[in-house]
Amino acid sequence: MARIEIEKKVLSENEKIAARLRQQFSSSGVTVLNLVSSPGSGKTSLLERTLGALAEVIPMALVAGDVQTDNDAKRLEAAGGQIVRPIITGGACHLDAAMVEKSLTEIDLNQIRLLFIENVGNLVCPSSYDLGEDQKVVLISTTEGDDKPQKYPSMFRRSSTLVINKIDLLDYTDFSMESARSNALSINGKLSVHEVSCRTGTGLDGWYAWLTELVARKNPDPKHIEENHRL
Amino acid sequence: MARIEIEKKVLSENEKIAARLRQQFSSSGVTVLNLVSSPGSGKTSLLERTLGALAEVIPMALVAGDVQTDNDAKRLEAAGGQIVRPIITGGACHLDAAMVEKSLTEIDLNQIRLLFIENVGNLVCPSSYDLGEDQKVVLISTTEGDDKPQKYPSMFRRSSTLVINKIDLLDYTDFSMESARSNALSINGKLSVHEVSCRTGTGLDGWYAWLTELVARKNPDPKHIEENHRL
Repeated sequence: MARIEIEKKVLSENEKIAARLRQQFSSSGVTVLNLVSSPGSGKTSLLERTLGALAEVIPMALVAGDVQTDNDAKRLEAAGGQIVRPIITGGACHLDAAMVEKSLTEIDLNQIRLLFIENVGNLVCPSSYDLGEDQKVVLISTTEGDDKPQKYPSMFRRSSTLVINKIDLLDYTDFSMESARSNALSINGKLSVHEVSCRTGTGLDGWYAWLTELVARKNPDPKHIEENHRL
Repeated sequence: MARIEIEKKVLSENEKIAARLRQQFSSSGVTVLNLVSSPGSGKTSLLERTLGALAEVIPMALVAGDVQTDNDAKRLEAAGGQIVRPIITGGACHLDAAMVEKSLTEIDLNQIRLLFIENVGNLVCPSSYDLGEDQKVVLISTTEGDDKPQKYPSMFRRSSTLVINKIDLLDYTDFSMESARSNALSINGKLSVHEVSCRTGTGLDGWYAWLTELVARKNPDPKHIEENHRL
């Protein structure tokens, strides 16, 4: 019981910081996506691809959460990320709003239009922690099985977008795209779904177009962005 | 700070129950394996295969932990599991010793020689919770990337055996078996490693032989087991 009370306090403290972050993001017109998935579903690969395609047209920053290493942050820098902040949680199984707030101290939000937060690889715990994002984007991959939405419903319920990665491996697995979609939509009928392969690039054009529109919708006239960065 | 104190109390309470469980398992001569992995690495598939191959010769029970469904327990029953107990954690990200103890109330440990505990799909949180097992068996799959041991070291440090699943997909991924092995062994040099495909069956004979020997070593002369179940 004491544990539940403490847990509630932690979450309520998190809500306060997340609200503060959301206010900052909103006044700066920055679109913020919180990427969540199991380990190895392809969060970092999706961001590497996205940097390669969009870094020149959408000024963006990336916060990469990891339990023990800064491997992901290094990969994102190598892929052309200009502003990359690692968060090493030191064992913790999710990011919280305080960690994100701390990592943003040296980022000028007025100079970016898009912020990706790559959460710790975990399909359970990160679902409870609001990071002030516009939306959670949940990734699954075709090699994980198509029943994941039913088994980890909280994450799918709290996400707005679902990316199904590794579609290049569809022929070699028992994954049914139809089941995966209907399983996910039965948990959350409002999910927008993207089918992609970060390895081959299939389907990514649709993801880029969706992302570009999302960013433009939040901040159609970014006066604070330098001319060469306008969409 | 208060949270850390509560966390310590929870873990210490868990240790007490785990010690009690270990004592029970030991006096009954039951080998207990705690299976841990990301969602979708193949814990249930490995158990389905293992039931098919060994259920006739090793009397076994299975406890299948899941966040919200009893999908895994149903799959294990369909695969021939005679004694299958689901644990639905109701949102919790790991099994704890109290859940396992409760699930065992109707299992006669003197009638089995092997108990599998399939943990919640999560490569972080279950590493902190002793369930009274002989050892943790950690699964990864070739589609998750070969850097998982570095990124989730606690789980690999606390496991004794590593199963690398989905080797049938090796040709279609960028996974390096050599890197995966050296990454894992650099975290824990004592890991015994099995390379398998639960889909095609490749490598599983070695896993069955290892398992059979493990069970026989703990309980070489199981007087309490009926004649037809002797190894």
